[in-house]
Amino acid sequence: MRTLFLSAVALAALAAPALAVDDAALREEALGWFEPIPMNPPALENNVMTRARVDLGAQLFFDPRISRSGLFSCNTCHNVGMGGVDGLEVSIGHGWQKGPRNAPTVYNAIFNAAQFWDGRAPDLAEQAKGPVQAGVEMNNTPDRVVETLRSMEGYVVGFAAAFPGEADAISFHNMARAIEAFEATLITPNARFDQFLMGDDNALNAQEKRGLAAFMATGCASCHGGVNFGGQEYFPFGVVERPGARVLPEGDRGRFQMTQTAADDYVFRAAPLRNIELTAPYFHSGAVWDLEEAVAIMGVSQLGAELTGEEVADITAFLRTLTGEIPRVEHPILPVRSQSTPLPEDM
Amino acid sequence: MRTLFLSAVALAALAAPALAVDDAALREEALGWFEPIPMNPPALENNVMTRARVDLGAQLFFDPRISRSGLFSCNTCHNVGMGGVDGLEVSIGHGWQKGPRNAPTVYNAIFNAAQFWDGRAPDLAEQAKGPVQAGVEMNNTPDRVVETLRSMEGYVVGFAAAFPGEADAISFHNMARAIEAFEATLITPNARFDQFLMGDDNALNAQEKRGLAAFMATGCASCHGGVNFGGQEYFPFGVVERPGARVLPEGDRGRFQMTQTAADDYVFRAAPLRNIELTAPYFHSGAVWDLEEAVAIMGVSQLGAELTGEEVADITAFLRTLTGEIPRVEHPILPVRSQSTPLPEDM
Repeated sequence: MRTLFLSAVALAALAAPALAVDDAALREEALGWFEPIPMNPPALENNVMTRARVDLGAQLFFDPRISRSGLFSCNTCHNVGMGGVDGLEVSIGHGWQKGPRNAPTVYNAIFNAAQFWDGRAPDLAEQAKGPVQAGVEMNNTPDRVVETLRSMEGYVVGFAAAFPGEADAISFHNMARAIEAFEATLITPNARFDQFLMGDDNALNAQEKRGLAAFMATGCASCHGGVNFGGQEYFPFGVVERPGARVLPEGDRGRFQMTQTAADDYVFRAAPLRNIELTAPYFHSGAVWDLEEAVAIMGVSQLGAELTGEEVADITAFLRTLTGEIPRVEHPILPVRSQSTPLPEDM
Repeated sequence: MRTLFLSAVALAALAAPALAVDDAALREEALGWFEPIPMNPPALENNVMTRARVDLGAQLFFDPRISRSGLFSCNTCHNVGMGGVDGLEVSIGHGWQKGPRNAPTVYNAIFNAAQFWDGRAPDLAEQAKGPVQAGVEMNNTPDRVVETLRSMEGYVVGFAAAFPGEADAISFHNMARAIEAFEATLITPNARFDQFLMGDDNALNAQEKRGLAAFMATGCASCHGGVNFGGQEYFPFGVVERPGARVLPEGDRGRFQMTQTAADDYVFRAAPLRNIELTAPYFHSGAVWDLEEAVAIMGVSQLGAELTGEEVADITAFLRTLTGEIPRVEHPILPVRSQSTPLPEDM
């Protein structure tokens, strides 16, 4: 009996109480940096998420007739079945052209402070207008999109239901607002990290907890914080040491291209890291396919720290706990074309 | 009372009994040519539709990593939200190449006697292997596809569940069988015409009934019969008079290209007409966007009959009653790549 009693105490001292203290401290520190993804999306500015508007947005998101060629839909590059990305270094667009930057995930994009790698769109509605018009992506025009949508009875009914009381419900802007409403539903709560943050000590294993501690201690969290582990602020790629041209092509100078300000040279929005294990390849260049390699590059370029192999492994293990619950998305049935629908053009 | 009584008799004589007789005769004649789409797909040869196999097939159907570039999935050209087609004259494929023929619908394809416009694949599994390898479509190889699938834990688990007991579950053939199992679920029962066929006199209006009668009387049903209104037999395009080169390009000689037999010159499988209002543009060339025009061309080329404007309108109205209930398809969550997954190649 006595031996047994001592053993139990010894076990308790070795395991549970010690861990409980560490977990509480780790969680407290983490709560200073991060927030869990909520179960429901936040309210939108200048938009409402009615069922009619979300459903219309889903149709538009999946409709390749939004593109001039009839080949590309939003989902082509932001595939809801593939972590919200296309899994390409840079996207293939109209006429087999290549986009300039890696397609960011649509999942949890609603939580970003601004959209695109350089943050040039203040919200998802403005973002949605970009690829539709970009010559290397959908290569369409607002007028032609509106003509396309107006030609289909299904969209006439859908826009009227989604934007009731508006005399001119079918507009390029309302298309973008409907897509924003749908995209706002694409959030991934309940990642294992979030479960830990909400109080479940067992949601992360020992290595993942070490990785979380290292992620905060080494400074990663300074840029990759908040609900989305990034997506809030802008930083030079190469705060400490600029990576090579493969990872940071010289021709793409980030926010400098918008602002023509020296301080914005090679400045990009800190990438949101939610579901990062699903969204390879990494960086705006899409040049790195391996998450470990991406973490090591970040250590050198942003923190000036040569992370040890163990630190990289721990941080990567932790990052894989940011994969949340992917929402179920029914593939929408799209409206039928009419004789006045513009024909696809792929010249 | 007497006036009322006479009126009722007069009304009955003018309307219901007369129509009832016509409807019964029309239905009886129609049942000699056509069958309704069943609520459930038929059993497959050499395949079983387990839930695991159908779900795996859905993942494969939607996975663009089956293509060499990583851009094209089966759903790109056989879009489940657009009547099972891409709405293009001919599909856009690898390197922005154009396919030789219009993409046929995947809906109800399980009911066709053979697949492709020339029937060169005996079943959907064999069909599925074609576009994956075609240089102008996905431009991949069986070995590279298998390597891709084997590299992902999600597919390792999925194939093991879908093909239990097989030592080498992940094979190109099993990929095709899983896709076939999923595609067999893509059937569209309960079209208004089927409701009429099953006994509902009111499922079709007077014009649609005239169209049905004309469809049988003029000879359309001779080639476009059965459950799928076609898809069973082969006929020269131009039984009576060969259409112009826009509709029937001289370079595409149909089954002749397979058999090198003079009798197969410009011979194609009679197109299945189910959901035809959703699958523009029409013919193997995809040259005709207007269903009325397609019907008129068929009259001249196949029947030697200059159909009147009213006949064309009636037959077209009838064809629009062949649109069935489109199944709900959840967009599958695709397996995550690994470091051994072949990278996309888009040269």
